[in-house]
Amino acid sequence: MTDEATAFVPGHVTGFFTVDRTDDPTTTGSRGGGLTLTDGVRVTVRPAEETTVVLEDVGVEIDAVDRVLDALGVEATVIGETDLPIGAGFGVSGAMALGTALGANAVFEGELSTSELVTIAHGAEVQAGTGLGDVVAQARGGIVLRLEAGGPGTNDLDGIPARPPIEYLTLDELDTADVIGSDTDRLSAAGADALSRVVNEPTVEQFMYASRRFAREADLLTAEVRNVIEDVTAAGGEASMAMLGETVFAVGTGLSEAGYDPDVCRVDPTGGTLEVENGEEQGELLDDPDGNEQ
Amino acid sequence: MTDEATAFVPGHVTGFFTVDRTDDPTTTGSRGGGLTLTDGVRVTVRPAEETTVVLEDVGVEIDAVDRVLDALGVEATVIGETDLPIGAGFGVSGAMALGTALGANAVFEGELSTSELVTIAHGAEVQAGTGLGDVVAQARGGIVLRLEAGGPGTNDLDGIPARPPIEYLTLDELDTADVIGSDTDRLSAAGADALSRVVNEPTVEQFMYASRRFAREADLLTAEVRNVIEDVTAAGGEASMAMLGETVFAVGTGLSEAGYDPDVCRVDPTGGTLEVENGEEQGELLDDPDGNEQ
Repeated sequence: MTDEATAFVPGHVTGFFTVDRTDDPTTTGSRGGGLTLTDGVRVTVRPAEETTVVLEDVGVEIDAVDRVLDALGVEATVIGETDLPIGAGFGVSGAMALGTALGANAVFEGELSTSELVTIAHGAEVQAGTGLGDVVAQARGGIVLRLEAGGPGTNDLDGIPARPPIEYLTLDELDTADVIGSDTDRLSAAGADALSRVVNEPTVEQFMYASRRFAREADLLTAEVRNVIEDVTAAGGEASMAMLGETVFAVGTGLSEAGYDPDVCRVDPTGGTLEVENGEEQGELLDDPDGNEQ
Repeated sequence: MTDEATAFVPGHVTGFFTVDRTDDPTTTGSRGGGLTLTDGVRVTVRPAEETTVVLEDVGVEIDAVDRVLDALGVEATVIGETDLPIGAGFGVSGAMALGTALGANAVFEGELSTSELVTIAHGAEVQAGTGLGDVVAQARGGIVLRLEAGGPGTNDLDGIPARPPIEYLTLDELDTADVIGSDTDRLSAAGADALSRVVNEPTVEQFMYASRRFAREADLLTAEVRNVIEDVTAAGGEASMAMLGETVFAVGTGLSEAGYDPDVCRVDPTGGTLEVENGEEQGELLDDPDGNEQ
């Protein structure tokens, strides 16, 4: 057993989505589209007598993280570090869940595949009620289209092959559980319509257009978010609202050209992955498997 | 239309595989396992009156590349740059095909999704007879397990969550088409057996063990490759043969500790992706989609 393992998981901004519930958390999820970001969460996992979770130096309760550790049957100290705003539509809880799964499997020398770890993190996030589509997108990276909902084995993912710069500006917080726990028929109809547009023309422009239209049709735009998006449009740019946060995201330099002072990053091409430290792999990878002739 | 677009596609070393043929090149392919490498092929695509393909400054005919450009209905200059040995089991033809698809879609402002581009590149490589599983693994990145064969929509991919350093040493060339065009029943039985072992215990150690066993059972080991692998084993390391090349690959420092002078890289976590140049995105991403209200 090594001392610790660290995974980096990109942030995820959802542009449009549906809510697709089943009796099983691993097949429950959401269709839709979102962008993973080079700004994300670094998650370090250390074996411990009793589980504690720290995010940005503050002890926190993150139900999805506890559920991941329970599923793996381990206790650990989980330390999250991020430049992303928390509770603002960047999938920080999903990143913590997926980073915990990847880190714990490495540090405890688990023998689970990538899809198994993603399934555990996705199911934990669904059961915690904090997200439906972030984890599977964060595991893949890029601009992710979720054509079918659920975890690995159930879902169907595609991508838009582009890596534009992204700017974002957070105005306030929204509670994901409040929105995705309420009546979602209208929201899901708007999300399915948006997805169908983008599948028909998988470009960054269509993605942004469909996202704006979804935010309007699903009645999720707040007045302040709407004002910022209109400012970006007036300046010739493309912006929409991060679902579900009081956050505006723009492609390229849309927010700064409209006079705002946004954070700047880029679409992440990689997805959640173990970090490599000083050229050394984490975990003891070269142990011989038991009982095999070499 | 921009001047050019460049994609980076990782090299891919296959450890074990099956041959699964159907009547359709997009569903034909291979189950198995392989490692994508941070050493890969940089593919630049420029619109041209007539297609020419250059690899390492030499004009070449790569049937899979021609087929990708035909499928996209374009003519282009395609320039490949790589540090990898060519014809030695690193999936250079697959990397050229996938890089051409990604680059051409960007430079000609195509509107194809990632899966559509991977399908085109995979089908082109199958029809050219130069590979069955490289393209889908190179599109995903990481240590890739191909649980079901074929292109996107048909296949089923998983991964081993690890990114170890990799060393490789090429001794000579092998012709992929000769091997995968001949009788493959024994090879496929050994490949299915290896895959089943690794699925049961998805770790780097099992991957290397299953790869060595496959090479022996499928009767693909040459005497020189066998000698090098035995030297690595004697020095306490893990090595196997890159399918299909006269190449030995090792995890960690296996080859250098056995006294060889290998190339050194690492498992690539990202997969094939457009390169970002000077902070600018390739292609004109901010055009308004036709006919949409903003």
